[in-house]
Amino acid sequence: MRVIESISEMQQQADSWRRQELTIGLVPTMGYLHQGHLALVQKAIDLADRVVVSIFVNPTQFGPNEDFERYPQDIPRDLRLLDELGVAAVFKPDAASIYPQGYQTYVEVQQLTQPLCGHTRPTHFRGVTTVVNKLFNITKPHLAIFGEKDFQQLVTIQRMVSDLNMDVEILGHPIVRESDGLAMSSRNVYLNAEQRQTALRLSQALEQARRLVSGGERQPQAILEKVKNHLLEGGGITIDYVELCHLDTLQPVTSLERPGLLAMAAFVGPARLLDNCILTPPGAGLHDRTQ
Amino acid sequence: MRVIESISEMQQQADSWRRQELTIGLVPTMGYLHQGHLALVQKAIDLADRVVVSIFVNPTQFGPNEDFERYPQDIPRDLRLLDELGVAAVFKPDAASIYPQGYQTYVEVQQLTQPLCGHTRPTHFRGVTTVVNKLFNITKPHLAIFGEKDFQQLVTIQRMVSDLNMDVEILGHPIVRESDGLAMSSRNVYLNAEQRQTALRLSQALEQARRLVSGGERQPQAILEKVKNHLLEGGGITIDYVELCHLDTLQPVTSLERPGLLAMAAFVGPARLLDNCILTPPGAGLHDRTQ
Repeated sequence: MRVIESISEMQQQADSWRRQELTIGLVPTMGYLHQGHLALVQKAIDLADRVVVSIFVNPTQFGPNEDFERYPQDIPRDLRLLDELGVAAVFKPDAASIYPQGYQTYVEVQQLTQPLCGHTRPTHFRGVTTVVNKLFNITKPHLAIFGEKDFQQLVTIQRMVSDLNMDVEILGHPIVRESDGLAMSSRNVYLNAEQRQTALRLSQALEQARRLVSGGERQPQAILEKVKNHLLEGGGITIDYVELCHLDTLQPVTSLERPGLLAMAAFVGPARLLDNCILTPPGAGLHDRTQ
Repeated sequence: MRVIESISEMQQQADSWRRQELTIGLVPTMGYLHQGHLALVQKAIDLADRVVVSIFVNPTQFGPNEDFERYPQDIPRDLRLLDELGVAAVFKPDAASIYPQGYQTYVEVQQLTQPLCGHTRPTHFRGVTTVVNKLFNITKPHLAIFGEKDFQQLVTIQRMVSDLNMDVEILGHPIVRESDGLAMSSRNVYLNAEQRQTALRLSQALEQARRLVSGGERQPQAILEKVKNHLLEGGGITIDYVELCHLDTLQPVTSLERPGLLAMAAFVGPARLLDNCILTPPGAGLHDRTQ
């Protein structure tokens, strides 16, 4: 496995693979890898001839009071795990080469980035789309894989790629969970034992919503109230948002006639945690999504 | 010469050339080609194995009261001229395929787009960088050529490419002028005979500035005053801006110790005309540019 820090070396490696007509799969990460990341990497390995994993804690996607400075890291462990999986190259640039002095270009997806996480993190998605755009230009992938835990990120990147005619296929991968249901996240390490227990209420609340919808409930207000009540019961959680929205536009649904996204963000101790699921009303298939 | 309207067909053609290890040169235009455009095309033909010329009057780079609706067109003539030169493909998409319903992604270069034309045309460069980014992703060029008449556009695109790590070489080409000195522009067609004569004062004023600087003048205020006086003498011209600025940052210079850009925009009748030149004080070489 090559570990590449230089942008031009990475581009040359990608060019060389492309000349050999090898397909390239990219999994962009901020490191501190968990089983969720590794599932994305495995999917890339199944689909592409050469897999690149980028590890870059991207400063432009963090707000001023967020956890950029303390974002967890374990590069030796990350490299070992990726090597074992059969990754061809890890691209691990430093911030000064990604954002050199005088840097001033940003890629912005305007509407999809407004709701949900956009309220609390107004500059977050601009940082994400900008760095992912750069990573695509550097690693020249045929396909790239993103986790569905960051559902808004996934649809935002799909929109960027489609709008800018980038010739890359964007694939999602279902949320990978701990055995007790907690969605995997590098930020789970911020939780102490009690908070870790409290955090289970996110996935439990989603489960509750699923049961409600299976039972015939289609009113977003009723669903959201149950979910919020479950989250708040017993304390220790501050809700950032809980929303039921269209899968494509992320705008709130007024009645759940087609599959919709139930998305939440909540603070548990020092961690801001995300979780989501797709709620499908009985009789509505996922193919209804684009109707 | 292929005339391609479909984005995916253009991408496939570019992929096919790249698989054959042929280099691709792009000249993006809005059509109604003049000798200036053709000089860019000739340069591309000299440098690349396959040349693509795009013809697209890009709505997002026009302001609400500008000339989008009446921008001149002569596609049959454009195609004939390009075919004669040996262009491999003309990419000529329609606006609905470039900006489909729901389009919402923009590429923005923040600082370089503020001065000069940025004052009068605050959304212009965002439209330019966005469409050029898309054209690069569609035509996949190794190099692209832009005229130096739009100097701010050229450095803005160079900045975008460098900031976003796009693997494309951006080359400028000197302004091509009519025999009497008027910089070639598709918009010159807006001028009647009298205005056409008045418009000569732009290039004359640049010439005057050059003479002043050869004579030892290094004070921007003195140079700019002479230039403005010459432009205004006799009426018929409204100055948008005349500025003497750093070649790389486009910020005003306080004393002309190194080569600087003398840039102007002026309204002559219905036309907004641009012109510029690089002023080099005696003893300062162009290599001083980056010192």
